[in-house]
Amino acid sequence: MTTNNTSENTLDMGFSALRESYKTGVATPASVMADIRQRAADYKDHNIWIHLLTESEQAVWLDALKDKDMDTHPLWGIPFAIKDNIDLADIPTTAGCDAFAYTPKKSSQVVQQLIDAGAIPVGKTNLDQFATGLNGTRSPIGACHNSFNYDYISGGSSSGSAVAVALGLASFSLGTDTAGSGRIPACFNNLVGVKPSIGLLSATGMLPACRSLDCMTIFAYNTDDANVALAAAEGFDERDGYSRQNPFDNQARQYGLRTGPLKVGVIAAHQLKFFGDESYEKAYLQTLELLKEQGFAFQEIDYASFDEIAQLLYEGPWVSERYIATQPLIDDNPEAIFPVVREIIAPGGKPPATALFKAQYRINYLKQICLAQMAQVDCLLTPTAGRHFTMAEMLEEPIKRNSELGYYTNFMNLIDLASIAVPTVMTENDMPFGITLVGPTFSDRMLMSIANRIQQALPLKKGALEVMATPSNTTSVGHNQTIDVMVCGAHLVGQPLNWQLTERGAKLKSKTTTAPVYRMYALAGGPPLRPGLVLDESNGAAIDVEVWSVPTINFGSFVAGIPAPLGIGKVRLADGSQVAGFICEPYGIENAKDITHLNSWRAYLATL
Amino acid sequence: MTTNNTSENTLDMGFSALRESYKTGVATPASVMADIRQRAADYKDHNIWIHLLTESEQAVWLDALKDKDMDTHPLWGIPFAIKDNIDLADIPTTAGCDAFAYTPKKSSQVVQQLIDAGAIPVGKTNLDQFATGLNGTRSPIGACHNSFNYDYISGGSSSGSAVAVALGLASFSLGTDTAGSGRIPACFNNLVGVKPSIGLLSATGMLPACRSLDCMTIFAYNTDDANVALAAAEGFDERDGYSRQNPFDNQARQYGLRTGPLKVGVIAAHQLKFFGDESYEKAYLQTLELLKEQGFAFQEIDYASFDEIAQLLYEGPWVSERYIATQPLIDDNPEAIFPVVREIIAPGGKPPATALFKAQYRINYLKQICLAQMAQVDCLLTPTAGRHFTMAEMLEEPIKRNSELGYYTNFMNLIDLASIAVPTVMTENDMPFGITLVGPTFSDRMLMSIANRIQQALPLKKGALEVMATPSNTTSVGHNQTIDVMVCGAHLVGQPLNWQLTERGAKLKSKTTTAPVYRMYALAGGPPLRPGLVLDESNGAAIDVEVWSVPTINFGSFVAGIPAPLGIGKVRLADGSQVAGFICEPYGIENAKDITHLNSWRAYLATL
Repeated sequence: MTTNNTSENTLDMGFSALRESYKTGVATPASVMADIRQRAADYKDHNIWIHLLTESEQAVWLDALKDKDMDTHPLWGIPFAIKDNIDLADIPTTAGCDAFAYTPKKSSQVVQQLIDAGAIPVGKTNLDQFATGLNGTRSPIGACHNSFNYDYISGGSSSGSAVAVALGLASFSLGTDTAGSGRIPACFNNLVGVKPSIGLLSATGMLPACRSLDCMTIFAYNTDDANVALAAAEGFDERDGYSRQNPFDNQARQYGLRTGPLKVGVIAAHQLKFFGDESYEKAYLQTLELLKEQGFAFQEIDYASFDEIAQLLYEGPWVSERYIATQPLIDDNPEAIFPVVREIIAPGGKPPATALFKAQYRINYLKQICLAQMAQVDCLLTPTAGRHFTMAEMLEEPIKRNSELGYYTNFMNLIDLASIAVPTVMTENDMPFGITLVGPTFSDRMLMSIANRIQQALPLKKGALEVMATPSNTTSVGHNQTIDVMVCGAHLVGQPLNWQLTERGAKLKSKTTTAPVYRMYALAGGPPLRPGLVLDESNGAAIDVEVWSVPTINFGSFVAGIPAPLGIGKVRLADGSQVAGFICEPYGIENAKDITHLNSWRAYLATL
Repeated sequence: MTTNNTSENTLDMGFSALRESYKTGVATPASVMADIRQRAADYKDHNIWIHLLTESEQAVWLDALKDKDMDTHPLWGIPFAIKDNIDLADIPTTAGCDAFAYTPKKSSQVVQQLIDAGAIPVGKTNLDQFATGLNGTRSPIGACHNSFNYDYISGGSSSGSAVAVALGLASFSLGTDTAGSGRIPACFNNLVGVKPSIGLLSATGMLPACRSLDCMTIFAYNTDDANVALAAAEGFDERDGYSRQNPFDNQARQYGLRTGPLKVGVIAAHQLKFFGDESYEKAYLQTLELLKEQGFAFQEIDYASFDEIAQLLYEGPWVSERYIATQPLIDDNPEAIFPVVREIIAPGGKPPATALFKAQYRINYLKQICLAQMAQVDCLLTPTAGRHFTMAEMLEEPIKRNSELGYYTNFMNLIDLASIAVPTVMTENDMPFGITLVGPTFSDRMLMSIANRIQQALPLKKGALEVMATPSNTTSVGHNQTIDVMVCGAHLVGQPLNWQLTERGAKLKSKTTTAPVYRMYALAGGPPLRPGLVLDESNGAAIDVEVWSVPTINFGSFVAGIPAPLGIGKVRLADGSQVAGFICEPYGIENAKDITHLNSWRAYLATL
């Protein structure tokens, strides 16, 4: 069998490369799958797979591709790996515990959506048993080994899913994330790890760890691939009690490159922890330096509340959810559970509901402090992990060091944030390092767009492969949480309709002028008095205006409240940019007074 | 002392009447307060007050009015009552239990906001102890009696707050609501009861009952007064872990009369329960008949999931929150607690966290079923209570009958809904009856606007007073969850940009034409090809258009994506109405082709 790649060091399992090789006939999905099986054998000792699918088990999906148009199936022939706590029809789901295993009749909702979009399952991957761990060593089939260095941990609990992609045995994969399981392995294997907002991806057919906090995640080489997979995977599912409609669903399939200055929150220096890993500390500081050169501005935030929340995840009553998830096995046959996992879960039946309520109150209190800080910045940026342990180090103190791995990740789902792990630099030891971007619920695409910018600025390879991961410089307009709108009359600061902006949480962004191509008219009617701007390329002037930044969700009602003959269209500013702004219907200026020579609405008002 | 009213049967404590009497000098706030104290003495046996404020205790607020402008203080001189589980500075907060009482140094956030807006506290009101009850009999100072008939229950737990307003001893009042405490007493005393979305009003300075479910509520005579009080009371408070920004905050101070057809969800007949109260059953059916005449269309919904949620509130682990709220008293001195309340709260330390997690999973699952049904209608409408018990009936079976009172109310806060109780008719026994409107989180103003319409359609008196409660027919534009937008070109069904509407969840509302006052041009550029409409009163035509209903939160991004020379302004339709729609800048039609005679963009495309 041949694949799209003739030698290991040009192996490219990225979506574009595969599609290109399918289109040009260099490879077929079947040849790629066969090649994966062959290469998987080389990595047997990495303990990546719990169940690697056979040719015959894959046949049904490969056959179905014949009836699918590549252009309308964004994942046509793309191989993906599935963490073994997510159902794939007719293949056992083990969660890393044979005594718990069952064979589902149906695939999980997300797996089914991916297959429908043309993707081909490669197999079920190894994990920290019951997704209980961040390190990848807690599996009865053996610890999963790092894709860069066999002596290092892979990270977990989604260990096999990350290593499979990093080593080119799948183009993307599904993990799950409760405390950091979708991010830590991304960091340790040079991948993008998308931890979506809870409820963005259906949990139907996914085994719970902590049901109220879990979410399915995506590992990929870069934001281009991650975004395509995310778009195919996401969607509201009313069978899942934690599923939610994405209010920004309108642009679910797009994300934009964030240009211009960004203000990013970073943890105050004295609160950073690297647990003795100087190479990670250096890599983090180097990352900040590199991003500073790219126009990122940093603002220190106080990590104390985030950290307190993080600690509550492991020390508080959420272990009761893990207990529920492993019932009845934990009650009837606890010896069947991996020792360190059993040790963690066994006490989960004990905490009282009062302890849980008190912990939830405390978390909600702390959440307000966290969100207030996050509101000051475009996103938060943290190291994804503070230290990359060797296997030996990890096994020395498996519980304490697992907690250390969660220092930057554990708070996330408890306060309902979105995040994405992004590789940024290789350490002095040639091991991967990365950061995590954090934003509010449903900021997934906004984070993706910042991650895209980081990947473009800091070129790295795809996982442990030799080809570059740099994503495309997409020009699609992404989800913006605010929309800039130009105002020139009654909405200016101090003018009678300015409250329509401030009540919507809009902020004054700049005072500037239009490009010198507008005529301004004082319209009939009022109060309030209003101007109308009319484009006149040959005989226009620069008019004083203000640009306000309006929360996107409130912009619609602002527009709806504007009376004829005015409306919102596009206007050109002095710096050549184009923003939303007030325009005027032709009939509106028929009996209006031309006041262009004053260049300013305020100047006109002063003449009255 | 004289008041604005010369005899009891013209007593009007509504906001407008009081303001009018202040403006004309017929009364002063001090004279009104003195009059309230006098009249309160007549109702001593109703057990309304735990602490009625003295003249000297009120002096500071009355004095402060001198420095406050009535026009900028919407509650200037308006007397309000405060449930005695909400802090008023320097006055004991007892929660109906002397052994628990403390004297706060600061007023609760909401009380302070109301005082800042000019309102004057009258006193602290009786309640079911620790807000544990829906009936008003569970108080050591004695049961609170109904304002219409002394032998009937007042409803609870916000008993005194409702009866105070109904009897004209306050113009509005604050209650709290966990299971229905802000709605049941409204129903039994002919008042509007606003149960806002959780977190809309700050809980800082409010004693918890079930901290995760509580909200402060407002009793008033009608939606006009309720809305003014709500606007002054609401607001984000980061000290309250459950406080949330209202995404529709932009129109927080406005609500509109809902005109036109409304589709309202009602409980399937076989799931209605009146617990033997034929007068309430008749009143409910009569209400539906009357509303049908007003253009309300009803769609039956399956109440099973709502009911299962309601039962989980009392039978599930939420009692653990009440246990926390009464600690350490419940541990150290349980005998100090009112017997039936103690009986309910005492087991609250026992449930395990596993039980709470399992109940939360179940509720989230059921919530999806409920919300899917609610998405089909403008709002849900239920009886507020199924039966109005006499005191004697209530005390016969205090726990069972309390549960019966919650049949229509208990589900609400567990699935984060907004609601408003509205009086609709008097029963054949001349007792008040009312319904509750229910909508999703932050639909508060939308519900208010429907309640306004009901109050206009079904004229009733103010509480137990003799003056009419009918609110004003306000014409302000309220919060709409959708915005209608007229499209005429590339966004029409089947045209290339139609996806920009459907991806935003927009629905086709109607196919119609514009008013016959537009000229249509085929603009230069494309693809996609686009038309431009220009108003021409004297020489226009009716153009084929579609009206799409776009979710308000997604409309902003739709507008932001429209390229010049087009924009969104206001257009006139064939039926004379005006909606948001595409307009065109003057320069756009300079080189465009006039295609008005075709009357339709599709007809034009057919010519190409």
